[in-house]
Amino acid sequence: MAEISKDVVIIGAGPAGLGAALYSARDRFDTVVLDKFVPGGQINLTDRIENYPAIGQISGPDMIDAMVKQVTSFDAEIKNNSEVETIIRRDDGLLEVHTDEEVYLAKVIILTPGSEYRKLGVEGEEKFRQAGAGVSYCGTCDAPFFRDKHVISIGGGNVAVEDTLHLAKFCKKVTMVHRRQEFRATPILVEELIEEAKKGIIEIRYDSVVTSINGSNKVESATLQNVKTQDSEILDCDGVFIFVGMNPNTKFLNGIVDLDESGFIQCDPRYLRTSVPGIFVAGDCRVGAAMQLVTAIADGVVAALSLKEYLRDPGWWRS
Amino acid sequence: MAEISKDVVIIGAGPAGLGAALYSARDRFDTVVLDKFVPGGQINLTDRIENYPAIGQISGPDMIDAMVKQVTSFDAEIKNNSEVETIIRRDDGLLEVHTDEEVYLAKVIILTPGSEYRKLGVEGEEKFRQAGAGVSYCGTCDAPFFRDKHVISIGGGNVAVEDTLHLAKFCKKVTMVHRRQEFRATPILVEELIEEAKKGIIEIRYDSVVTSINGSNKVESATLQNVKTQDSEILDCDGVFIFVGMNPNTKFLNGIVDLDESGFIQCDPRYLRTSVPGIFVAGDCRVGAAMQLVTAIADGVVAALSLKEYLRDPGWWRS
Repeated sequence: MAEISKDVVIIGAGPAGLGAALYSARDRFDTVVLDKFVPGGQINLTDRIENYPAIGQISGPDMIDAMVKQVTSFDAEIKNNSEVETIIRRDDGLLEVHTDEEVYLAKVIILTPGSEYRKLGVEGEEKFRQAGAGVSYCGTCDAPFFRDKHVISIGGGNVAVEDTLHLAKFCKKVTMVHRRQEFRATPILVEELIEEAKKGIIEIRYDSVVTSINGSNKVESATLQNVKTQDSEILDCDGVFIFVGMNPNTKFLNGIVDLDESGFIQCDPRYLRTSVPGIFVAGDCRVGAAMQLVTAIADGVVAALSLKEYLRDPGWWRS
Repeated sequence: MAEISKDVVIIGAGPAGLGAALYSARDRFDTVVLDKFVPGGQINLTDRIENYPAIGQISGPDMIDAMVKQVTSFDAEIKNNSEVETIIRRDDGLLEVHTDEEVYLAKVIILTPGSEYRKLGVEGEEKFRQAGAGVSYCGTCDAPFFRDKHVISIGGGNVAVEDTLHLAKFCKKVTMVHRRQEFRATPILVEELIEEAKKGIIEIRYDSVVTSINGSNKVESATLQNVKTQDSEILDCDGVFIFVGMNPNTKFLNGIVDLDESGFIQCDPRYLRTSVPGIFVAGDCRVGAAMQLVTAIADGVVAALSLKEYLRDPGWWRS
C-alpha cells in the first residue's frame, strides 16, 4: 500500500478529534481525521445539549455538523469508515497509521477514539436512548430535563452514587436500583447517599435489577426484579439513568501506548502526551478526562497546541 | 457589613468565569459571579472569533451575551462593578470575599480574573484595536484574517517568535520589529526564525520600535524608529501584531494564593486547585493556561466539577 504523508493524523472524529482538527488545520498543518464510522461518536446519540457554553440548546448531530463544516473550511480532511488497525513508530520518529485500506505516515498522532457508555442490554434501552425519550447515561448533562419527575437510576459505583445525588436535586423522586447489598463507591459517597435517602427523595432498591424499560413513545415504566426472591414489579417512572460504567475505545491501542487498568490512555494532564513520543491524546478516552463535551473539545485544542512544541524539538517530549 | 452566604463565588465574569458558573449553577449551587466592570473581559475587545468550536463566526460581545443568557437562565447571579479587595480563609474553612461594598461568605471560590495583553502605548493602538481594523495581540487567533497581507509583528519573547512564524504561514510578508539585537526567546525558536527569514517572507528589523500606527479607518502603515540611529521610517502594512506579553489580573491575590514570578496563579493542572483549600482557578490567569477561548471556558467547567470533590471531602484537597 502506498503511504500517505500527513503532518497530523487524528484518530476519531468526535468532539475531541474535531476540536484538535480545527486548531491543527488553522495552524496550516496537513491534517486528516480518521473515523471508523462517521463523525460524531457518542454525542450523535444526544438529542438535547444545553451545557455547551454559548449555545443555548443544540442536538448532538447539529453540533457535529457545525464542527465538521468549520473544520473542513480550514482544509482538514475527514475520512469516514477508516478503522485504525495498528500504529508503528519508526526509527526515524515518523508514525505509521495502518487502516484496513491505507497507511498514513504522520509526524504527530492525536488519539481521540472516545469512550462508550456500557449498556444494560435490556428491552427498551435502545428504543428510548435519548434524554428526551427518557434513557440517559449522564446525570450531569441531563438531570435538569427531569425536574420534578420520577426517575430510576442504576448502578453502584462512584458515578452512579454521585449522579443519583445530583438527580435528587432536580427530581421529585429517584429510585436507585443496585444489584448488590454493598456499593463499590467510596465510603464517603455511600454515607452521603444513605443520609440523603433519609430525606425521602432517594429510595434505594438493593439486590435488584431492571429487566426492561417500557413505554410507547417515551419511558413510562421500568420492570424491576429482585435477584434473591426473583419477584418482579413494574414501577412507573419518567426516565431511566444507567450508570454502569464507560468503556474507552482503546482496544486497538493495547501494547502501543500505556493504558490504565480500565483501558484509559495514560498522559500528562498539561500537554496530553502519551507514553510514545509524537502521540498525543484528547477527550473521554484519556485518564483524568472530565467527560464533558466542552472539556473534550478543549482537550483536542490543547493537544493541537502542544504538538507544535514537539515538532520544534522532539526532546521536549520528556521535559 | 452583612455577610452574604453563597455556595460558590466566582471572581471574574470572562469566559472562564461564565463557563464555571454554567456548570456550578446547573449543579444547583448558589452561585454568584463578581466582576470589577461588566462581563466579558479581554474577549469583549475581539470583533471576530472563528476558532470557537461549533460556532463559525461570532464577535466577542455576542459570545459573552450568549454565555450570560445561558448562565443566568440557570439562576447564577452576575454582579457588575464588584471589585474584590481581599479574601480571607476562616478557621472553619469558609472563605470571606470582600468587595468594596459587600462581604460574601463562600464554601468555594473560583478565581477567573483573566489576563490582559500588555500594550505598546503608541498612537493608533487603541483606535485600531480589533483584528478587523488591523491591531491584534494573538497570532493563533487572527492570522487567517491576514492571508496574503503585509503585517508587522512586535516583540522578542517566545510568543513573539512563535506567532511571527505562524503569521508567515498566512501573510505575504511579516516585518518583525524588535527593539534589541538579542531575542529573549529560546534558542531553538530563534534558530527557526532566522532560518525562516532566509526564505524572504519574514524580515527582521533589529534595534527598532514602532512609534505609531497610522490609517483612517484601518491600519495603513506604521512608523518605525531605529533606537540607535533615531532614524524614522513609515512602512505600509495591513496589520500590526503586538506580542509584548501578558499581565495576569492577580495583584489583589498577592499573599493570598501562590503565584509564579510573573503573577500567574499556581495550580495542579488536573483539578485546578490553588495553594489554598477551597480556592480553585481557571482560565488565562493560571500557570499553564493554553490562552484560548475554549480552553479558558473548559477550565471553568473543570473547576466547577472539581469543587464537588472538595465539598464532599475537604481532605481531598491534598490528595
